[in-house]
Amino acid sequence: MEGECKRRGEGQVEIGVMMEAVHKVEAAPPQSTVDKMKLRFKETFFPDDPFRRFKGQPPRRKWVLGAQYLFPILDWAPNYSLSFFKSDLVAGLTIASLAIPQATRPLPPISISHLSFSGISYAKLANLPPIIGLYSSFVPPLVYSVLGSSRDLAVGPVSIASLIMGSMLRQAVNPNTDPFLFLQLAFTATLFAGIFQASLGILRLGFIIDFLSKATLVGFMAGAAIIVSLQQLKNLLGIVHFTKKMAVVPVLSSVFHNTHEWSWQTVVMGISFLAFLLLSRHVSIRRPKLFWLSVGAPLASVIISTLLVFLLKAQNHGISIIGKLKCGLNRPSWDNLLFDSTYLGTTMKTGIVTGIISLTEGIASGRTFASLRGYQVDGNKEMMAIGLMNIVGSCTSCYVTTGAFSRSAVNHNAGCKTAMSNVVMALTVMVTLLFLMPLFAYTPNVVLAAIIIGAVIGLIDVPAAYNIWKLDKVDFLVCMSSFLGVIFISVQEGLAIAVGLSIFRILLQTTRPKMIALGNIPGTNIYRDLHQYQDAKRVPGFLILAVEAPINFANTTYLNERITRWIENENSMEDKETNLQFLILDLSAVPTVDTSGISFLIDLKKSTEKHGLELTLVNPMGEVMEKLQRANEIHDFLGVNSLHLTIAEAVFSLSSQNKLQQQEVSSALFI
Amino acid sequence: MEGECKRRGEGQVEIGVMMEAVHKVEAAPPQSTVDKMKLRFKETFFPDDPFRRFKGQPPRRKWVLGAQYLFPILDWAPNYSLSFFKSDLVAGLTIASLAIPQATRPLPPISISHLSFSGISYAKLANLPPIIGLYSSFVPPLVYSVLGSSRDLAVGPVSIASLIMGSMLRQAVNPNTDPFLFLQLAFTATLFAGIFQASLGILRLGFIIDFLSKATLVGFMAGAAIIVSLQQLKNLLGIVHFTKKMAVVPVLSSVFHNTHEWSWQTVVMGISFLAFLLLSRHVSIRRPKLFWLSVGAPLASVIISTLLVFLLKAQNHGISIIGKLKCGLNRPSWDNLLFDSTYLGTTMKTGIVTGIISLTEGIASGRTFASLRGYQVDGNKEMMAIGLMNIVGSCTSCYVTTGAFSRSAVNHNAGCKTAMSNVVMALTVMVTLLFLMPLFAYTPNVVLAAIIIGAVIGLIDVPAAYNIWKLDKVDFLVCMSSFLGVIFISVQEGLAIAVGLSIFRILLQTTRPKMIALGNIPGTNIYRDLHQYQDAKRVPGFLILAVEAPINFANTTYLNERITRWIENENSMEDKETNLQFLILDLSAVPTVDTSGISFLIDLKKSTEKHGLELTLVNPMGEVMEKLQRANEIHDFLGVNSLHLTIAEAVFSLSSQNKLQQQEVSSALFI
Repeated sequence: MEGECKRRGEGQVEIGVMMEAVHKVEAAPPQSTVDKMKLRFKETFFPDDPFRRFKGQPPRRKWVLGAQYLFPILDWAPNYSLSFFKSDLVAGLTIASLAIPQATRPLPPISISHLSFSGISYAKLANLPPIIGLYSSFVPPLVYSVLGSSRDLAVGPVSIASLIMGSMLRQAVNPNTDPFLFLQLAFTATLFAGIFQASLGILRLGFIIDFLSKATLVGFMAGAAIIVSLQQLKNLLGIVHFTKKMAVVPVLSSVFHNTHEWSWQTVVMGISFLAFLLLSRHVSIRRPKLFWLSVGAPLASVIISTLLVFLLKAQNHGISIIGKLKCGLNRPSWDNLLFDSTYLGTTMKTGIVTGIISLTEGIASGRTFASLRGYQVDGNKEMMAIGLMNIVGSCTSCYVTTGAFSRSAVNHNAGCKTAMSNVVMALTVMVTLLFLMPLFAYTPNVVLAAIIIGAVIGLIDVPAAYNIWKLDKVDFLVCMSSFLGVIFISVQEGLAIAVGLSIFRILLQTTRPKMIALGNIPGTNIYRDLHQYQDAKRVPGFLILAVEAPINFANTTYLNERITRWIENENSMEDKETNLQFLILDLSAVPTVDTSGISFLIDLKKSTEKHGLELTLVNPMGEVMEKLQRANEIHDFLGVNSLHLTIAEAVFSLSSQNKLQQQEVSSALFI
Repeated sequence: MEGECKRRGEGQVEIGVMMEAVHKVEAAPPQSTVDKMKLRFKETFFPDDPFRRFKGQPPRRKWVLGAQYLFPILDWAPNYSLSFFKSDLVAGLTIASLAIPQATRPLPPISISHLSFSGISYAKLANLPPIIGLYSSFVPPLVYSVLGSSRDLAVGPVSIASLIMGSMLRQAVNPNTDPFLFLQLAFTATLFAGIFQASLGILRLGFIIDFLSKATLVGFMAGAAIIVSLQQLKNLLGIVHFTKKMAVVPVLSSVFHNTHEWSWQTVVMGISFLAFLLLSRHVSIRRPKLFWLSVGAPLASVIISTLLVFLLKAQNHGISIIGKLKCGLNRPSWDNLLFDSTYLGTTMKTGIVTGIISLTEGIASGRTFASLRGYQVDGNKEMMAIGLMNIVGSCTSCYVTTGAFSRSAVNHNAGCKTAMSNVVMALTVMVTLLFLMPLFAYTPNVVLAAIIIGAVIGLIDVPAAYNIWKLDKVDFLVCMSSFLGVIFISVQEGLAIAVGLSIFRILLQTTRPKMIALGNIPGTNIYRDLHQYQDAKRVPGFLILAVEAPINFANTTYLNERITRWIENENSMEDKETNLQFLILDLSAVPTVDTSGISFLIDLKKSTEKHGLELTLVNPMGEVMEKLQRANEIHDFLGVNSLHLTIAEAVFSLSSQNKLQQQEVSSALFI
């Protein structure tokens, strides 16, 4: 595309395309197959090149670096200072005040922009005893503080994973009639989740979680939030007989078929606290400096409501309370793991789904705060840390935990410096477990419900969905199908539909690749999309097409049909001055070809010749060029004029074969 | 990329980048969402634009064209002439001589380059009574001659589909102990195959068969050929007790555990005829003019061997024969269709798999001969024709049929003009069915085995596999996994593994897109891959990267990591003269972005700014440009210098911000 040069010095304008040199298309310097495989393997599985720090270091230093790689605590602990500890202490106590109410009823923080909420509340979402939620806020944070590479991540149970675990296991076992078996399945599923997460990290298959696109997650979270909120209507309205199903229709019908069970005391209490929580969040969002308001609101609600119930003896007036909780730390649970073949399928499936979902939240949260502070988080290493944390958790009466977005945001805002804040939180939870449990006996369930609803409402991100609609209709379709699928079918199927759609879209982009007809921008050697650039002009006698995808088995048939139609169209155009003589195929945007792609190019060369057209390929990339050369050794289909470096050179060199043609091209290009 | 111009007229060389004009990046002219959806829908499902013939025609003519579209026979029948009929008669009789021996034992012609073989032989591959094979060569060709748009395709049972049907149904029902139920399942599976094929055509989802790449098919056919040949050892060696399994290991162990059952008479006869058949094929390949030799050999073998057995009463000396076949045409079989829920899963699965496989052969054969003769075959219409043919077939005692490659090749070579040759073949088969069946009673099974082996050996295409190895190692992996999967696991699983691998490869190309660092080719405005073009030079202070894939949810994380690493590398290079100041991202090869991709670009802009880098996007395509604009309305992230039409313009305009920088760039570019 170099120098279309007009001599101006002599006051004379020479019209025409002057190519200073016609450049040869080169192949990349030869490389052995093994080297190429190595490179490709590295690019696929080690794009972040985790070992670059080790290069050129003395062996002793390598050992230290290796240990630091495996145990990031060795990286920061030696330089840990008192001022760091002060910050971590404040942050740790803050997230503990969130964690304690959250913990008892495993609930939701995948939220992208809202911090408030908590609950003595998470485990119940997973149909587990409240105490399991507290256990899960004690051991896993300790494990993470040793293995985790994020400085901001606060670890604990999260709502979406709790919800999915509860709903998937409930399909196999009824948690009310068989709570112990249910608990066993939960621990086993947690073990599988941990093993799956750690394996993803070790096998460096972390990119699997990338298939949950933002659009999928926006829809999924909104759907899950609605499902969760509806489930809370049981406690918010004080209904005793409630459906076991999750979908919208049975839940609503259950709510309205049991209006006689609604308890006005419960409803009043619930609505008041919900209003308080929503108000505090609203204020926090408006005035970011008052963020502590929404952070403190859940704990305050728990304390106030517990006091209220205790003083008014409200449990005798139709308000259900948590009841007695035993003091004591986590008991070992490895003997409760159940590998019975009846439930193995369920627990493995549950483990894999919750594992993926919780990883997505953990990694996304870690990356978000790392980028805010300008440090790097190694995704695959985080997966190993989270995985190990869950493996250890499953043996110490914990269920699935991960880095929780909302909790991490609070941690970050409260000024944490290192993973030490997790240790502080864990120790606070420990004190609670040992001494403060009896205080929660009078906590009313309705407040926990209010906390959960207040929390998950933040997950419904309407502006994000609207932006998706504005930017990309297909993404919006993915978003809506995950939303509607979750609401009307089931959590895992909604998710599966959305992921399936996203993958189908990628495949469709390859099977139906974009093809663009290019024209010359007058007065230059630039060739651009005729449709996009209105001043771009067709070059008479030339059809210039760019393919925008790898050429492979999945699209050669399509490309063939499409190019044939294009040539037909071109030939039947009414305003044509010149017969079509040359077909230029711009391969700049074709990263790879496979054997079908090569066959396609060879066949295209032959079939265009039959139509009296000459085919020229422009700017094949390294790999494509290499394969073309090798195919040419076998089939010998590339002529002298078959390869050019730029479209401009191809046009010049082809039209110069024919004086008349050249005149026309010149006058068309440079009037 | 226009005019880097040196004034030469005055004998003075001015060093520097002279841009004649800086061009604006334009978006495509606005289009409503509905129009865009329409266009995309059309490109996806109607790439061949089947209705273009209807445009601007009077209504009456449209009716005629519509009828001709649905029934291609209306297209050619009115102009049918006697000379055409003479050609079709010869061709029809020739393929009938192939069809009759083939038919009785459903066997194999997906071969890409070998014509010879036949057999009273196909149906037995599918574990069906021989007569079903003849029936299937009578009705379906008649249906196809009305509906099919190919002039060369010869229709009938094919080996691969027969083989798959036999092996898949055998997993549910034993054909020896329960032959009638097996037959019912075969008809039902054929019905499902037909419905599936026709639906693919009607829904215009024909591209599904594109996912069977050439590499997959080469491996699959070789594997199937070996499986089929091994199955024939039963008849070739005269073994009575033979395994029911298909995989290599059990078959070979069955062969060598029953050596006492081998019958020398059978072995001698089998080897002799096999040698004769292979020799005739060898001669035909060497001297294409003698093609009739390999075409006639199977029928000759059948006749000679039948006579031999009849004269020598060889059936009493350990040679097994076909036995009596009843005369008479196809009986209706719609009352034999079985929709019992026990077998519904099996028949549907079998129908879909055989449907896809036989479509692949039919469409590929049709396209091959159409391109040889220079006419077009409409893939989706062919699917409807083949589908209807199988639906009708399932009700008239036929099993799965399609356009057979080998038979079509013979048809083409014998000079057929229209689908009338299929009619001639069908009528010949009819005569055979009505009157000649008793003649086949003495045909020995061993000759059919020899014919099958002779046929399928041609399916093992070692040179094709070698070419795949030379061109593309991943394709070779796909090829080998389909080959080994078919041999050692099962036909359908081998195929599933190969297709899965191919799809995984496409996904991997999107999740791990190619990124290329570009450099300037001295003395020009061309920027090319620094690795591929050894004389391309880095531009000091600039990092110029091209992304070669759609930017979407599946690769934004990767791109982020990769670009970060690239910037780090660049900053730590030892021989750098200038600090990195600009990051140019060439989007020429990015056909689409989704919402995640847009977020990625916005985040990249912000994070590069934090590193003191300026990000510029070059040449976004129509859709990308449009989404960038819309995102900019919301987030306002594009600055004055954020978009350029070419890399050269971006380099010029950015470096001109800074005089010093410009000097360095100029001297670096034009020494």
